[in-house]
Amino acid sequence: MARKIIIDTDPGIDDAMALFYALDSPELDVVGLTTIFGNASTETCTLNALRLLEIAGRTDIPVAVGCDRPLAMPFQGGAAFVHGADGQGNVHLPLPQIKPISRHAAQFIIDTVMKAPGEVTLVAFAPLTNLAMALLLQPEIAHYIQEIVLMGGNAFVPGNATPTAEANIWNDPEAADIVFGADCPITMMGLDVTEKIYASSDVLDRIRTFDNPKAQHIARILEYYRMFYRERVGLNGIYIHDSTTITYLLAPALFKFVNYPVRVETVGYGRGKTWPALGRSENETAWQGRREIRIGIEVDAEKAIQLELERLAR
Amino acid sequence: MARKIIIDTDPGIDDAMALFYALDSPELDVVGLTTIFGNASTETCTLNALRLLEIAGRTDIPVAVGCDRPLAMPFQGGAAFVHGADGQGNVHLPLPQIKPISRHAAQFIIDTVMKAPGEVTLVAFAPLTNLAMALLLQPEIAHYIQEIVLMGGNAFVPGNATPTAEANIWNDPEAADIVFGADCPITMMGLDVTEKIYASSDVLDRIRTFDNPKAQHIARILEYYRMFYRERVGLNGIYIHDSTTITYLLAPALFKFVNYPVRVETVGYGRGKTWPALGRSENETAWQGRREIRIGIEVDAEKAIQLELERLAR
Repeated sequence: MARKIIIDTDPGIDDAMALFYALDSPELDVVGLTTIFGNASTETCTLNALRLLEIAGRTDIPVAVGCDRPLAMPFQGGAAFVHGADGQGNVHLPLPQIKPISRHAAQFIIDTVMKAPGEVTLVAFAPLTNLAMALLLQPEIAHYIQEIVLMGGNAFVPGNATPTAEANIWNDPEAADIVFGADCPITMMGLDVTEKIYASSDVLDRIRTFDNPKAQHIARILEYYRMFYRERVGLNGIYIHDSTTITYLLAPALFKFVNYPVRVETVGYGRGKTWPALGRSENETAWQGRREIRIGIEVDAEKAIQLELERLAR
Repeated sequence: MARKIIIDTDPGIDDAMALFYALDSPELDVVGLTTIFGNASTETCTLNALRLLEIAGRTDIPVAVGCDRPLAMPFQGGAAFVHGADGQGNVHLPLPQIKPISRHAAQFIIDTVMKAPGEVTLVAFAPLTNLAMALLLQPEIAHYIQEIVLMGGNAFVPGNATPTAEANIWNDPEAADIVFGADCPITMMGLDVTEKIYASSDVLDRIRTFDNPKAQHIARILEYYRMFYRERVGLNGIYIHDSTTITYLLAPALFKFVNYPVRVETVGYGRGKTWPALGRSENETAWQGRREIRIGIEVDAEKAIQLELERLAR
């Protein structure tokens, strides 16, 4: 039986790739999308989520709109320099024909989890505001979530939004600290592992040869993402961050993990840093009572890329 | 000509080792000690500095007493569980016969640097309160300090006082942030490198065979330090943190470095964390205008230990 997942997303170029990757994987049953700000505004990201479902021919999947700002600061304005002003590499798609449902993303998460207790996994490609809102609205859902799998954070490596913090977590550190404190299994696919999955320009050129509308859209929007990596990062290829969560769901054996309670810094130079309770400390009270997070630290990158290409080629 | 150094210290078991190592090295001219809280109170650490000079037969070296608390918080109470209640492994030495000079440590640093501009290196085994005080009292001394070499911080590894912070920096993060912002060459020997210099129990047993009062004192006080490592850290040996600064001064070629501006976190879970300006950030304003710190990251540990033993045997 396919595993039920809700994808919380801010599409986003790598979000689009990861969403199509999930939709192309029969092991997964995408029961809904929830949308959030991050790579662009919540409005833009919602339009993109609807557009992507149209491209995929999966307009049966409900889309629930989430918060339009982080819990404790204004929306920071997105990352047009990475994803384009439209969040999809400035290809400026027409408005979607389909509409989101009327329920708030947080309520949709609660309802979906409680309708199939223990069977729903939350997969987050984005800032964790919607997940935190669901946990704030109805804390007991934690006990009925099968697993939270998130792209975000940096346990042992530098950040990418700041020297200290990864972009998804940095976009709502307060929400992330709530989610990392939830009493359910949580797997973190942070920069520790996503930056080990480097898709070279050659790999990306192969996507262009796949004769299906999803792959053709990905090939088109990747041009902008590749430009960002070339000009701003100095790489002739990309990290496919969000897809790492899907690869983990399909093939967890490709990864190595360490397990620690995690707190998210909300102040200072380290705002947005995910702090594992490391070391032989006498002063770990701030981490006490938190479940261990499963943190991805190693991956068989070649097999991860192979698996994703295989699915995108379908 | 021997290199002039002032040693700022909170003895401390590894401080004693590092001090004797320096005194046994003709390449270095120890022109004074300044004392500070850390491993124990400033009073206890001052008594120990005087005692150590007596043991070494170097009562010609002036000792100037420093601050008795960090800049922005009360004194945290020391680390009796590592260094003993007396800071010297609970061997309870008699009171010293010699006395400290009457000048404050910060003023002694300023006067010594200005008397020989460009010729004096400040070597810190301890929290950086005295160095920060000197820089606050007379900021222009930065241009006349040859180099600051400090044991402290953690750039790429966990902390040892907390999951996030190393003990010397954690004992006065505000002072450390001032020092890391000073406009002079600064070399940081943090846990990144000091925890790579592991002295096994066998190595430590050799010290006992050295027939001189300094080595005999070290062998005696190391018993307590070894017990801490055995019982609390789970290691049958020790890290000789402070000595790493002296090894660097004698043999810099044994080390590898990276260079980054550094800020010290003063808030949150990361209080006391030394943050290099890592990554491809768009948000590095907090690091702007700071000189690059030379951060030790690799060391030829075997040669480092060999060099120290050779000197302690003299």
